[in-house]
Amino acid sequence: MKTYCLIVQYDGTDYAGFQVQPGQPTIQGELETALQKLGPNFIRIAGAGRTDAGVHSEGQTVSFRDDQLTVPVDRLPYALNSLLPRDIRVVESRMESNQFHARISAKDKTYRYQIYEGPFPNVFYQRYAYWSKESLDWERMSECGKLFLGKQDFAAFAASGSSVKTTVRTMYDVQVDAEHVLKTIRFTADGFLYNMVRNLVGTMVDVGLGRRSLREVESILESRDRRLASATIAPQGLFLERVNYS
Amino acid sequence: MKTYCLIVQYDGTDYAGFQVQPGQPTIQGELETALQKLGPNFIRIAGAGRTDAGVHSEGQTVSFRDDQLTVPVDRLPYALNSLLPRDIRVVESRMESNQFHARISAKDKTYRYQIYEGPFPNVFYQRYAYWSKESLDWERMSECGKLFLGKQDFAAFAASGSSVKTTVRTMYDVQVDAEHVLKTIRFTADGFLYNMVRNLVGTMVDVGLGRRSLREVESILESRDRRLASATIAPQGLFLERVNYS
Repeated sequence: MKTYCLIVQYDGTDYAGFQVQPGQPTIQGELETALQKLGPNFIRIAGAGRTDAGVHSEGQTVSFRDDQLTVPVDRLPYALNSLLPRDIRVVESRMESNQFHARISAKDKTYRYQIYEGPFPNVFYQRYAYWSKESLDWERMSECGKLFLGKQDFAAFAASGSSVKTTVRTMYDVQVDAEHVLKTIRFTADGFLYNMVRNLVGTMVDVGLGRRSLREVESILESRDRRLASATIAPQGLFLERVNYS
Repeated sequence: MKTYCLIVQYDGTDYAGFQVQPGQPTIQGELETALQKLGPNFIRIAGAGRTDAGVHSEGQTVSFRDDQLTVPVDRLPYALNSLLPRDIRVVESRMESNQFHARISAKDKTYRYQIYEGPFPNVFYQRYAYWSKESLDWERMSECGKLFLGKQDFAAFAASGSSVKTTVRTMYDVQVDAEHVLKTIRFTADGFLYNMVRNLVGTMVDVGLGRRSLREVESILESRDRRLASATIAPQGLFLERVNYS
């Protein structure tokens, strides 16, 4: 069996998320349907991150195994793009070793969250940013971001009801950039719990609005209690930016 | 009669352009329908630039006269936005003197054209940029832009069949910015002929591809012959960025 790796960009607005769900348009579903047209086998793919409904990707990484695809690996993006909807594009393809798995082999991932501040929603950012009518204190949000660095138990920021072995993750970097019209917060970690980025950003926005103190955020982290953190922020500001492998 | 001025942003993707056309969705049509709901009179509006189907605006300026609107001028954006589709937003409103007319009073306008270069179309720029599969020589395009500066007859770059008194316009500035993923060309002039920006950019892209020399572009300008210029480039990369008044 050969192992393939693809890098996929998508505008998640019109999809029910990455992961296949019966009767709903999903990124995985569209990719598997397109692959099915290229060879005799049904091919199950694995994505590095299971992005939610409305979440976008600039660097989703996908792997799969097959030995009967006849399209050469460097032509795969062209072949797949001709079969995929316009809001999903395969932008890179390569062969990998048999040990490679897009999710399990990932060393770390970077997610970016975009926020637009202004009195009225911006028509060009509606699909791609969270709109804050009120001004945010970006310096305090940057301070807040530092609290999330390092190896920590992020249980308070995981979606309730998710079943994972451990809620400990290592956050390598949190970068707040408020220099441009579109403000961004980037998180790089060895893994993310379900809804974790949107829960962290929801809490950071509350800090930026003066609704929560940094001391409170520290207590929330320590509590490991999801009920104490802020509401999960809207999906449309979230982008899976990059997946790194060693 | 009072004279009102509005600044309007819109994503032009789903519209047949600014100007009212029977049976078609237009920006002017949506704005006039919304205004009609706020007062007893039908209000005809004037826009500073008649943007085409698929063309966007960050700073379209609109004026109209009425004496029976009861909504205070500073509340107009809120009142209109609650009635407008999500892809049209009124972001500013003010009273003007009776002599003011959004198009006639304009001192100059700035249009921006966006280009994305890469082997595959970018899913996030599909509605907002022209995609060039081939790399462009941005230095030569910048040189080309300089040929368009000053008071000149732009007849070769006007849509054929347009009836205007004069095809002479003064171009104050042409700025090429190729520093970021999204490349931009900004044009500031005292006025623009129909399709002029898209014809200028079409010709600049041909220069960037090495299909035309700067000497040829000079000849095209001098010829005043529309048939010599390059094809009109796609509308989705074009933004009316700002309208200036003295």
